[in-house]
Amino acid sequence: MALTIGVDVGGTKIAAGVVDEEGAVLASALRDTSAADPVAIQEAIADVVAELRAQHEVSAVGVAAAGFVDFANGVLLFAPNINWRDEPLRDGLQARTGLPVVVENDANAAAWGEFRFGPARHVDDMVAVTIGTGVGGGVVSGGQMLRGAKGMAGELGHVRLVPDGLPCGCGNHGCWEMYASGNALQRNARALVQSGAPEGRALAELCGGDASRLVGPMVTEAATAGDQASVRLFADLGRWIGEGMAAIAAVLDPALFVVGGGVVRAGELVVGPAREALAANLTGRSQRPAIAVVAAALGTQAGTIGAADLAREVTAAVGERVAG
Amino acid sequence: MALTIGVDVGGTKIAAGVVDEEGAVLASALRDTSAADPVAIQEAIADVVAELRAQHEVSAVGVAAAGFVDFANGVLLFAPNINWRDEPLRDGLQARTGLPVVVENDANAAAWGEFRFGPARHVDDMVAVTIGTGVGGGVVSGGQMLRGAKGMAGELGHVRLVPDGLPCGCGNHGCWEMYASGNALQRNARALVQSGAPEGRALAELCGGDASRLVGPMVTEAATAGDQASVRLFADLGRWIGEGMAAIAAVLDPALFVVGGGVVRAGELVVGPAREALAANLTGRSQRPAIAVVAAALGTQAGTIGAADLAREVTAAVGERVAG
Amino acid sequence: MALTIGVDVGGTKIAAGVVDEEGAVLASALRDTSAADPVAIQEAIADVVAELRAQHEVSAVGVAAAGFVDFANGVLLFAPNINWRDEPLRDGLQARTGLPVVVENDANAAAWGEFRFGPARHVDDMVAVTIGTGVGGGVVSGGQMLRGAKGMAGELGHVRLVPDGLPCGCGNHGCWEMYASGNALQRNARALVQSGAPEGRALAELCGGDASRLVGPMVTEAATAGDQASVRLFADLGRWIGEGMAAIAAVLDPALFVVGGGVVRAGELVVGPAREALAANLTGRSQRPAIAVVAAALGTQAGTIGAADLAREVTAAVGERVAG
Amino acid sequence: MALTIGVDVGGTKIAAGVVDEEGAVLASALRDTSAADPVAIQEAIADVVAELRAQHEVSAVGVAAAGFVDFANGVLLFAPNINWRDEPLRDGLQARTGLPVVVENDANAAAWGEFRFGPARHVDDMVAVTIGTGVGGGVVSGGQMLRGAKGMAGELGHVRLVPDGLPCGCGNHGCWEMYASGNALQRNARALVQSGAPEGRALAELCGGDASRLVGPMVTEAATAGDQASVRLFADLGRWIGEGMAAIAAVLDPALFVVGGGVVRAGELVVGPAREALAANLTGRSQRPAIAVVAAALGTQAGTIGAADLAREVTAAVGERVAG
Repeated sequence: MALTIGVDVGGTKIAAGVVDEEGAVLASALRDTSAADPVAIQEAIADVVAELRAQHEVSAVGVAAAGFVDFANGVLLFAPNINWRDEPLRDGLQARTGLPVVVENDANAAAWGEFRFGPARHVDDMVAVTIGTGVGGGVVSGGQMLRGAKGMAGELGHVRLVPDGLPCGCGNHGCWEMYASGNALQRNARALVQSGAPEGRALAELCGGDASRLVGPMVTEAATAGDQASVRLFADLGRWIGEGMAAIAAVLDPALFVVGGGVVRAGELVVGPAREALAANLTGRSQRPAIAVVAAALGTQAGTIGAADLAREVTAAVGERVAG
Repeated sequence: MALTIGVDVGGTKIAAGVVDEEGAVLASALRDTSAADPVAIQEAIADVVAELRAQHEVSAVGVAAAGFVDFANGVLLFAPNINWRDEPLRDGLQARTGLPVVVENDANAAAWGEFRFGPARHVDDMVAVTIGTGVGGGVVSGGQMLRGAKGMAGELGHVRLVPDGLPCGCGNHGCWEMYASGNALQRNARALVQSGAPEGRALAELCGGDASRLVGPMVTEAATAGDQASVRLFADLGRWIGEGMAAIAAVLDPALFVVGGGVVRAGELVVGPAREALAANLTGRSQRPAIAVVAAALGTQAGTIGAADLAREVTAAVGERVAG
Repeated sequence: MALTIGVDVGGTKIAAGVVDEEGAVLASALRDTSAADPVAIQEAIADVVAELRAQHEVSAVGVAAAGFVDFANGVLLFAPNINWRDEPLRDGLQARTGLPVVVENDANAAAWGEFRFGPARHVDDMVAVTIGTGVGGGVVSGGQMLRGAKGMAGELGHVRLVPDGLPCGCGNHGCWEMYASGNALQRNARALVQSGAPEGRALAELCGGDASRLVGPMVTEAATAGDQASVRLFADLGRWIGEGMAAIAAVLDPALFVVGGGVVRAGELVVGPAREALAANLTGRSQRPAIAVVAAALGTQAGTIGAADLAREVTAAVGERVAG
Repeated sequence: MALTIGVDVGGTKIAAGVVDEEGAVLASALRDTSAADPVAIQEAIADVVAELRAQHEVSAVGVAAAGFVDFANGVLLFAPNINWRDEPLRDGLQARTGLPVVVENDANAAAWGEFRFGPARHVDDMVAVTIGTGVGGGVVSGGQMLRGAKGMAGELGHVRLVPDGLPCGCGNHGCWEMYASGNALQRNARALVQSGAPEGRALAELCGGDASRLVGPMVTEAATAGDQASVRLFADLGRWIGEGMAAIAAVLDPALFVVGGGVVRAGELVVGPAREALAANLTGRSQRPAIAVVAAALGTQAGTIGAADLAREVTAAVGERVAG
């Protein structure tokens, strides 16, 4: 049995796990860390790996991190949350751990997890869309992770949906994530409460009348309880999600969209309208089957599991070459 | 020396060529054909293959055709110009010719030609965009042709650029090709002439005052001769091309866009503004290198050359497996 | 008691009525007419006036016609349906009838009718919006008919709502009437049926499965019977209506929008969403009262009644000047 | 000779002038003031009026102030810069000065000045557009100031040009002023410098490489000196200005647009593209004359002159009634 470790490096903490060939997490460990000190983060990763190796024999380590990744060379080109620029993360960690290491973008790793062990495990072409604060993405095409020339493929949240639209932190206008993210939901919900319109009453009560304290889970709570304005906010969000999926489907033609992230807790309130909007806007829809939209299955462990599996794949391939 | 035949099946004629490993066309042949009769087209393909085999020894045939293609099974699922629905083209042609056959979407085949022997031969990730009557596309990612789950990937002309925008023949609104195609150029040029505005005078003269007779090459002619309104029409077209490329780059992160099709005859008048608009709208542009935009090199032979090369690849792979 | 005649000149028929100071129609008459013959139309108007004068003593005639009208001089500058170009309609009809005549744009006349005798009779600032095949408008501001420099004010249906949007017959893109008219409703309903989506089943049954036979009243019928897809089609239409109203309100700040035309038969199914969208998009909405949206009251007689009243106003003003 | 005083009340200072029947300013005076103290502002207005009356005999006072104004009752309903809510400004100032007073919105007063003594003095229907930090407007229709039901007409900067567009401080998205104002110019110029693109070099030099210090006049300077990127920034701004004018023209059909504000110092660099975009988007443009676009003539005195003239008009009308 070949076990590998997956490590998901976030801005404030590091989550790691020992993962088997079926995607099961056999052990896990956590570290707080300081984003300001790139060396300390490498040491923390090595440390958490050592802790897990004391429990299980493992053959390789996969690291998932936010940012632009040069997968072939294991270099983190740019990380938004950590002070890494052209950081040779793979070589550094191989030296520290003595194990083979692969480095992958975190959204890609999570997508790979869902592709291998989640709802996309029976297809070769899938797109994972994570609806959190922003909108992240990962693409598997023909069974291969799609990485692009500079490790920047799958930046789905920054596909432009609206010309001259809402300004995005990325410097562009009208990016998908300005309309289809948890932030968009929160922005629209707050605007409703601030307007003082009577249909916003249920949400106003949930935030004690202070729109600036209104957050997504309150909208989920209200919508689930039947508040029509909140249901409409999710339907609107779902419509934008589906319209963006249709644009992406014209490029990638996946068999499946897997939707993850906090917003998905609203379930069919948001996934249903997304599915409808995708179907209504799908290119060539009268000459082709619909594309399914399903909820992600691995939750916050998707990155860890996916990174561990990518480590297994790469080291297995190397092993084959050596053995051949 | 392994030679293969590429066949490009259009709505009114079939172009075929014998292609060597360097992408050179050693011999070529042509057939008129009737789109109404799918059987006659298969016979015409077999016939043109026979004609070329009389001149050169070949090992396989690659067929490029417009439509949705199931590459793995060699089936044409849907063709817009020919009465093919779920047509088992590969098996039919293998039976007729006794040679291994592969079937590919024509835009994909052309993209593959540019990828292997054109300006994209030094990169692993490229997008070919063909600006003709509409906008077609083909994607190579990580050195692999991107085909999607149902052979419908790369329908780049139908990425939505404008919500509630111009209606497209595909049933959607705001598709890229409604703003970035030769048809769009013609539509805008005709509108300028019809408006009677003085800046449209040069174009009005070229079409004898009858806007319905104004076609793209006249705009190219006027722009090349320095007519400022025509220069602006191309700049506007280029801007839309570049804005669409930026959306696609957020998904695919190619190293290169290769632009082909009739409109490209206007050269930098259209490619320059496209390049500028791509740079100005590229996601993460301050943290990443620009993406190059270059003109296609293989012209109308791209489909033939690409199909022939795909046939060589596939049969070589089969050969290796047999030999291994 | 001062009675006047109002004449509403349409493309295929002329409707006329004797109207009293309270807006009541005491008698009415009708003529078919040929749009091709402008002289015949003048004769038909004179004829219908003569028929009504045989029943009632009248002091003036008001004529409402589609087109751009020079009100001060009683000239029809351009009519879309009738072959009138710079037609001196007032002088021609005064010569034929021996009565004072005023000529007004038909949408303006209808707006004036609603302003004087309909739901807007208690306000000084109102906008009448007629949702028919297209979207027409008439504006009263400070108690005065708003006509503009060339009689072309109130072309509300051609305010641009969507940049690079749907092409309009007027030569522009994204005009309000492409999204907020009966034609838009029909287009969207037909697209739903053509898509074959299950939620279009009720509409498909009403048109016998032939989308090209689906018309607006069928959508009204289905929506009234509770078909959710049809309810959504009206909600979407109403949303566009309200969004356009908000743009117009930023310019005109009316006390009231009066909505007429065939689509209004759907009642609150369309007026409700329009009112909501206006409220949600109204400039300065937190510092100002809402603007009411109500259904028109005079129906197809609004133009006749309004034209008759304008004739009374103008001749009364002349009378005062003479008497003064 | 009837002289009146016009007072333009800004957020930080009060500008007043004695104006004659030809719109000439015979004397002027200035006060600093504190926006926080509404009573102090009334006293400062009374004080500046007293100062001017010591020099000239005047018959009335017109006050121009930013905000929503109930003209009939002389009440400032809401002022964005001064702490006035439902302030009975007319009655307060009449009590303090013993003169008849009228109160008008400042953009309306400025529009009235241009209408009476500027380039619009020969037409009855005009729209004044002030391109400053935001976009302000004033409308004269049929020779009458257009005020609307609640004194909120002419909020032209808040006509929506882009659905789901840039968020505006007013709470809406896609308002005209987000694309057509001095702020928009500055935002786009800064983005160009920040992008590091070579064409932004001239602007980068003007602001010492610090985009946050780049302001509109630098763009004017660079464009005037021939910097092509700056010329394009103005052309883009002008295009948005003209597209908004076309939307407004469909409602109001003015004979003339008068464009004022700081941006206009760039002259034809911005007015030319505005005129072109208006012509290209004007409703019914093939059946109607073009609408002229000209620069404002009265500069920063427009509000003072317009307010003084409105005071003369109203008191003259009262005088006539009394005399009659």
